[in-house]
Amino acid sequence: MSEESRGPSRRRFLTSAAALGAGTVAAGMARAQQPDPLITEVQPWAQQFGDGVDATPYGLPIRFEDDVIRRNVPWLTADATSSINFTPIHALDGTITPQGCAFERHHSGAIELAKSDYRLMINGLVDQPLVFTYEDLERFPRENHVYFCECAANTGMEWAGAQLNGAQFTHGMIHNMEYSGVPLRTILREAGLGAAGDLKDKWVYVEGADASSNGRSIPMEKALDDVLVAFKANGEALRKEHGYPVRLVVPGWEGNMWVKWLRRIEVSDSPVESREETSKYTDTLADGTSRKWTWVMDAKSVVTSPSPQAPITHGKGPLVITGLAWSGHGRIQRVDVSKDGGKTWETARLAAEPGAKALTRFYLDTDWDGEEMFLQSRAMDETGYVQPTKSQLRAVRGLNSVYHNNCIQTWWVKPSGEAENVEVS
Amino acid sequence: MSEESRGPSRRRFLTSAAALGAGTVAAGMARAQQPDPLITEVQPWAQQFGDGVDATPYGLPIRFEDDVIRRNVPWLTADATSSINFTPIHALDGTITPQGCAFERHHSGAIELAKSDYRLMINGLVDQPLVFTYEDLERFPRENHVYFCECAANTGMEWAGAQLNGAQFTHGMIHNMEYSGVPLRTILREAGLGAAGDLKDKWVYVEGADASSNGRSIPMEKALDDVLVAFKANGEALRKEHGYPVRLVVPGWEGNMWVKWLRRIEVSDSPVESREETSKYTDTLADGTSRKWTWVMDAKSVVTSPSPQAPITHGKGPLVITGLAWSGHGRIQRVDVSKDGGKTWETARLAAEPGAKALTRFYLDTDWDGEEMFLQSRAMDETGYVQPTKSQLRAVRGLNSVYHNNCIQTWWVKPSGEAENVEVS
Repeated sequence: MSEESRGPSRRRFLTSAAALGAGTVAAGMARAQQPDPLITEVQPWAQQFGDGVDATPYGLPIRFEDDVIRRNVPWLTADATSSINFTPIHALDGTITPQGCAFERHHSGAIELAKSDYRLMINGLVDQPLVFTYEDLERFPRENHVYFCECAANTGMEWAGAQLNGAQFTHGMIHNMEYSGVPLRTILREAGLGAAGDLKDKWVYVEGADASSNGRSIPMEKALDDVLVAFKANGEALRKEHGYPVRLVVPGWEGNMWVKWLRRIEVSDSPVESREETSKYTDTLADGTSRKWTWVMDAKSVVTSPSPQAPITHGKGPLVITGLAWSGHGRIQRVDVSKDGGKTWETARLAAEPGAKALTRFYLDTDWDGEEMFLQSRAMDETGYVQPTKSQLRAVRGLNSVYHNNCIQTWWVKPSGEAENVEVS
Repeated sequence: MSEESRGPSRRRFLTSAAALGAGTVAAGMARAQQPDPLITEVQPWAQQFGDGVDATPYGLPIRFEDDVIRRNVPWLTADATSSINFTPIHALDGTITPQGCAFERHHSGAIELAKSDYRLMINGLVDQPLVFTYEDLERFPRENHVYFCECAANTGMEWAGAQLNGAQFTHGMIHNMEYSGVPLRTILREAGLGAAGDLKDKWVYVEGADASSNGRSIPMEKALDDVLVAFKANGEALRKEHGYPVRLVVPGWEGNMWVKWLRRIEVSDSPVESREETSKYTDTLADGTSRKWTWVMDAKSVVTSPSPQAPITHGKGPLVITGLAWSGHGRIQRVDVSKDGGKTWETARLAAEPGAKALTRFYLDTDWDGEEMFLQSRAMDETGYVQPTKSQLRAVRGLNSVYHNNCIQTWWVKPSGEAENVEVS
C-alpha cells in the first residue's frame, strides 16, 4: 500500500506526533512519540471478516478476560458443596454485577429445579394456606429494584488480621442486580394474612427446596416492607446457582436470608431459631457472648482498584482510584478516600445518584506521585452512620467474630504499583 | 419417612388445603385443591447435594432457559458476516439486558482485538494529534450511565406489513446496559480541541478497527455532550461482539453510530458522508426523496408479553401485560396500553423512575376475560412527543423505508392465548 493511498490521516499523524515533543501532553501520560504501527498500518483484523452473529447465541466474555471469574478459596469452607466463591470486583466497574460472575454461597450445593416442578407454599398463621406454581407467581403485579446482596461473612477472615490478598477475596461476597419479582406482602395477603389479628409480633419462616433448606426467620415488619419473591435478575431468569427459578430478595439484609429455590413461607408468632440463625450467622462479641439477630448489613466500602489484584502498571501521573460503597440502611451519602492510612481524607466523586440498598460506584481522580500509599475508603450513609475502622469494630466485637465485618480496608500501594492487604494502627 | 418426621408443616397444609373449597381464592387463580406431592413429598433435589461453587467459574443460564438466546432471521441480511441477531426481549423482564443475549449487528463480523493491540487515534483539526493505548484511556475520569442502543433498522421489516411474528424479531434490535467510560469531550480536549477556533460547525468522524470501518460523522455539539468512549458494559469488559475492548456510546442516537472496536476519531469541518450514512441509514420519504441525517431514535414502545413468543398459557383471570418504552430524546413520561387496537387506552404503571435515553419497563396489571385482544402500547416522552400509529408514519414516510420505524405495534391475542403480529386500520 502506498503512502498516498493511506490517505491524509497517516501523514497528519506523523507530522503531529513529531511536533509533540517530549512530555508536552497536558495530563503527563506516556504517548507514542514514534509512528505506532498498530495505528498506522493496516492490521490483520481489518483485512478479514470476523465472527458472524450465529457464533454465540448466548455469549461469554472474550478469551482475554478469562481471569475475570468467580474464584474460590479452597481452605475457607469445609467441603465443595458447602462453599463460597467470590465476585471479581477488582476487575469490574460500574455497579451492576453480571450473573455469570456474581458470587455464590450454598449450603448443600446448587440444585437444578425446573419451573414445572416448582411450588411455593404459604402456611402457618394465615386464613388460606396456599400453594403457588411458578406460573401463578407471574400473574401478580411485579416490581423492579436494584439491590446489593452481601454474605454476612464477607470480609469475615479479616477479623484477626489482614489475610486475603485481593479485593475479590476480602470483599467479593457481594453482588448487585436488578431484580424483578412480586412483593412478599402481596403473596402473604393473598393467603389472608392479617385477618387473624395483630401482625406486630408475627414472623415468617422461609426455607429453600435444597437439602440444607437454609431456613431463616424474618420479622413481619420487614416481610411486609420491601422483600421480593424474585424470578429474574438483570432482566433474565435467575441462574441455577442464584436460586432458579425463584429466590427471596431481602434488601439490605444479610445474604443468607435471601433464600434460594424458595419453597415455603410459614407465618408464625415467634422466630424458629433455626440452625442457620443460631449456630451460624450469629455475632460473637468481645465479652464472649453472642448477639441475637444482626440482619442489616451496615455501611461499608472498599477500593477495588488499585488493589492487590489490580496493581498500578502505568507509573506515576494521572490515576483513577475507584471502589464500591453500600449500606443496608439506605442510600450512601458520601465516600471519602485516604492515601495515608486515614490521616487525611478526600471526598470521592459518586458516579451516579446512589440507590437505596444498592452498590454505589465512587471515583477519586488523582495524580500519583509514585510514592507508597495506604489507600482506604470510608462510607457514610443517609442515617449519618460512618464506616468504622478495624480498631473501632474490634473494641466492640473482639477478634473471634466471623460475620458483619464492615471495617475500613487498607491497601498498601508500593512505589512499584503493586498493592498488598495490610492493617494500619 | 414417617408422617410425624415430616413435621407440622405437612399436616397444616393438608387440613388447610381441604378447607379452601373451590374457587375461593381472591385473585381467581388456579390452585392445588389436593395435596400436591411436589410440595408435600421430599423431592430428589432435597435429598442430595447440588453443584459446588467450582462448577462454573463464569456461569451460563440454566439449561431450561436455552431458548432465551439471540436469534437470527437468515433471509434478512446478505451474508453471515454482515448480519443481525435479536435480543430475546419477549422473555426478559426489568430493564438491564445481559451482554450474553444482547443483539449484535456488525458489517464485517465481530473481530478479536486484544487490549495490548488496541490504539485510538485522535487527529484532524486538533492541536495535538494523539494516539491512546487502552491503559491511557483508563487513566481519564470515568462516568457510568445506563443507555439503550437501538439499531436504526429495528422494526424495519414492518413498513410494508406485519411480517415477523415475535417481539424479539420486530423489536429485538435493542439492548440496555450500564456503560463505564470516558466522555469523548475529555479525550478531544486532551488533543487540544477548541484552541483552533469555533467548534459550532465542526464534526467528528469515527471509525472502527474492523474491515468495514463503519465510519460515521457526528456533529460536534453531540460529541461534546454525552458521548462516551466506553470499555465496560454492565460492570464487565465489553464482549467481543459488542466492540471489545472499546466502543463508542452515542446516547439516544441510532446504533450504527455506536462504533465498535473504536480506532480513530477525526475532527473535521464537514461530515464525511460515508457509505454508512448515505447508501445506508438514510430514510426514504413518501415522495421518493431521501432525508439527510436521522440520528435520534424517536419515542417507541412494545408489549413484550403477551406476544407471539410469549402466549398466555394460564387462561382468563389475572394477567400481567408488560413491555418496554424508550426515547432518544430523553425520559419516557407515560405509556398507555390498549386492548382494542387503539380505540381505548389505559395508562400503564412504570416500574421505576425512567432514566434518560434508557429503557423503561411498564406493566398493566389486568384481568383477562378470555376474549381476543388487539394489544398496543403507546409511549410519550418528556418532550411531549407521542409514538405514532403505523398509518401516521406511512403518511410521511411511505412504504419504502427501512430505518426509523417507531410505529405502534399490534399483537392479536386470541381466546386461546396465542398471539400474532397484525395491523389494525
